[in-house]
Amino acid sequence: MEETLNDKNSDKDSRPLRIGIAGLGTVGSALVGMLEENATQIERRHGRKIQVVAVCARSRSRDRGIDISSFQWYDDPVALAGNGDVDLFVELMGGEDGPALAAVKAALAAGRPVVSANKALLASHGVELAQLAEDCGAQIGFEAAVAGGIPVIKTLREGLGAASVTRVYGILNGTCNYILTRMGQEDISFADCLKDAQELGYAEADPTFDIEGFDTAHKLAILTSLCFQCQIAADEVFVEGITAISQEDIKVAAELGYVIKLLGISQRSEQGIEQRVHPTLVRANSAIARVDNVLNAIILETDHVSELMLSGPGAGGSATAASVLADILDIARGQSIPPLGMPTGELADYRRAPMRAHKGGYYIRLDVIDVPGALAAITSRLGENGISLESVIQRPDLNHDVHSQDSDSGNGENSRTLVLITQDIIEASLRKALDQVADDGHTRGAPQVIRIESF
Amino acid sequence: MEETLNDKNSDKDSRPLRIGIAGLGTVGSALVGMLEENATQIERRHGRKIQVVAVCARSRSRDRGIDISSFQWYDDPVALAGNGDVDLFVELMGGEDGPALAAVKAALAAGRPVVSANKALLASHGVELAQLAEDCGAQIGFEAAVAGGIPVIKTLREGLGAASVTRVYGILNGTCNYILTRMGQEDISFADCLKDAQELGYAEADPTFDIEGFDTAHKLAILTSLCFQCQIAADEVFVEGITAISQEDIKVAAELGYVIKLLGISQRSEQGIEQRVHPTLVRANSAIARVDNVLNAIILETDHVSELMLSGPGAGGSATAASVLADILDIARGQSIPPLGMPTGELADYRRAPMRAHKGGYYIRLDVIDVPGALAAITSRLGENGISLESVIQRPDLNHDVHSQDSDSGNGENSRTLVLITQDIIEASLRKALDQVADDGHTRGAPQVIRIESF
Repeated sequence: MEETLNDKNSDKDSRPLRIGIAGLGTVGSALVGMLEENATQIERRHGRKIQVVAVCARSRSRDRGIDISSFQWYDDPVALAGNGDVDLFVELMGGEDGPALAAVKAALAAGRPVVSANKALLASHGVELAQLAEDCGAQIGFEAAVAGGIPVIKTLREGLGAASVTRVYGILNGTCNYILTRMGQEDISFADCLKDAQELGYAEADPTFDIEGFDTAHKLAILTSLCFQCQIAADEVFVEGITAISQEDIKVAAELGYVIKLLGISQRSEQGIEQRVHPTLVRANSAIARVDNVLNAIILETDHVSELMLSGPGAGGSATAASVLADILDIARGQSIPPLGMPTGELADYRRAPMRAHKGGYYIRLDVIDVPGALAAITSRLGENGISLESVIQRPDLNHDVHSQDSDSGNGENSRTLVLITQDIIEASLRKALDQVADDGHTRGAPQVIRIESF
Repeated sequence: MEETLNDKNSDKDSRPLRIGIAGLGTVGSALVGMLEENATQIERRHGRKIQVVAVCARSRSRDRGIDISSFQWYDDPVALAGNGDVDLFVELMGGEDGPALAAVKAALAAGRPVVSANKALLASHGVELAQLAEDCGAQIGFEAAVAGGIPVIKTLREGLGAASVTRVYGILNGTCNYILTRMGQEDISFADCLKDAQELGYAEADPTFDIEGFDTAHKLAILTSLCFQCQIAADEVFVEGITAISQEDIKVAAELGYVIKLLGISQRSEQGIEQRVHPTLVRANSAIARVDNVLNAIILETDHVSELMLSGPGAGGSATAASVLADILDIARGQSIPPLGMPTGELADYRRAPMRAHKGGYYIRLDVIDVPGALAAITSRLGENGISLESVIQRPDLNHDVHSQDSDSGNGENSRTLVLITQDIIEASLRKALDQVADDGHTRGAPQVIRIESF
């Protein structure tokens, strides 16, 4: 890339870098505005102008608060990406395949550097695109694709020296973090919280992708590849969303000194790499527990830098646009670095460590039918499977809100909430024990199981 | 720099980058070990070997746990810096002037890139060295000079796009943070805590530089320049250390919902730039309050990325060496960037905003002589100077430990601790009011004044 740019621009320092932007939503519009407002500052600082020359979006006439009349207009992003007047192609359309993929490929194939904020695209095609970029001598920057305003891609690609990451985890979805934070602060249900988040613009009309954990999984898969120098394996991420988290869980967790967060976690184990996204009980006094509302945070544990935490805005037009611009400026300066931190050919295959082999603590909430001997029967089953308990909580004041509609139904027996906290155990043993408990008929409904991490 | 390296290494990808290291203390030794252990990984990842060819240290024979027999030995770092076999000079000697400065200048003057972990050198001569580097077409990296293992220099130079920093603050000294954290957790005096820190290796035999805040001031001055594109002005930093912080202050602060941290803070005000290092009351539920023990943290507030926090190890051989290595690898890849983020000639002059003009809240602890009307007289003086109070605490149970040796001395009168929390006021008004209070003779000794920040 460096050579390509230098070849093209023998007077690199004086010639503007001409960019084409496909996608003029919140981020694209913010980027155009930012380039205009900061034009003088950018040139003074980087010795080079960045100039938008062409744009492409769904609607030409929509009012975005920016003037696009001086830019070439394209209806087709692929045509924009192939425009010889464009030195760098910025993809802000979104979408895992389709026009975004086609346009990015077209730009790279022409040796044209690309900056993208598209996590779905990167999660699904990142290795292929990195390979194409390397083959064609182009760069691809995607800082904004993971945790919008937090420079975690730069840190992983450039900032750690030879430090080797042993575990990465984080809060990567602002929607989920907002919902869980509010549920922890107020006596409000998941459903009501989600409705508020939608009204505030923190959640989409169809929030599935966020609240079921898929958005987090995409970002985690990209981080995993950079951390462990392996293929991106978004389909191999174990994913559980937050829809089943109740006020009861949050309150009992708080009593026990925990906070519930939706985390993406990736770590090496003997079986391979464990990539997982799930609600997690974290200690209330841990750094990650304090990352609230729509903030994101990533913690990198390495052999040399024991623990590095980056936190900040994970989304938002201007924060994300600032990351896009940082990538553009790196490329304008002639940066040359393998997109995934390591030449694509050197990436290891991804070997998935099965969740059944996961070792950790568990929070288990059971709806136990109120008959003598039920507790003894349940704890015996756990004991038979080698599961040691750290805490057992069965109290009359445990809230039954979530199950109130069921608790006196069925065969007319009452039920009580029982919460168990296990020591570190193997997930397969727990699943087996819980199946046996269900078969024994002392519980009602499915057990609530939430993993615990002791960061 | 890019051109220089490319000219020298037409076969850049295959030729090793040969480095010379001056200083083989904890960081230098860790770097040598790290380069050896990770040699294969570095070459696979970056397509280039990094090879130590020459070293220089105080003692040739000292056992450092590394084998230096294959490196050229130098007694004189300036000679090492001038060695034509060295592609990059690593300065890990320390010291603001003397051989470190001479050697770095010699390397840069020869167009040889430099990586340094020396905060005192950068704080005092950073602009001069950046200018020299630019003039001679060399790079100078100093990631390790500020907050050892945290990539804050990279983030400021490369990661923020065109975002403009409005305020930067942080915990930049692990020794002070360890002492204040322990004082907050246990009923232990500053002096005892310091002794423990020295035994644990967290504080130097002569701890003045750390506990009086000068170390933080050096780092802050470097950050300020990068944040505000101005000259480095380490001598202009307002500095107060932590030696006067008592258990009483920490306990009363905790009761009021605050934690005391030694912060470096730099912000623009109407008068110029306010750079200050002082113990600070921060809200117990703020992110910075949770950064404990020897950890460091930096918070960047910008117009585009509202708040970005980086936290991690601020010192330690391998964390610091990892940052040194990250700089080396950037240079090995041909990175070309102005050392202070902005070409030296474009840096603004530093205009100091006087502390007397500082606006903020204050914690004031007074030792008030126990006579009727004293409280009324004191609060009247404050009122006359336009100072509004948020809290007034005078209780029999307030601990008198710190002053117990004095409290019944003098003219035989008893005294009581009075703690006042002001609203946001101008420092000059407070100083005037406190002088008047002292003149009125109702208090004993100097008042304790600690600034409050509501992050």
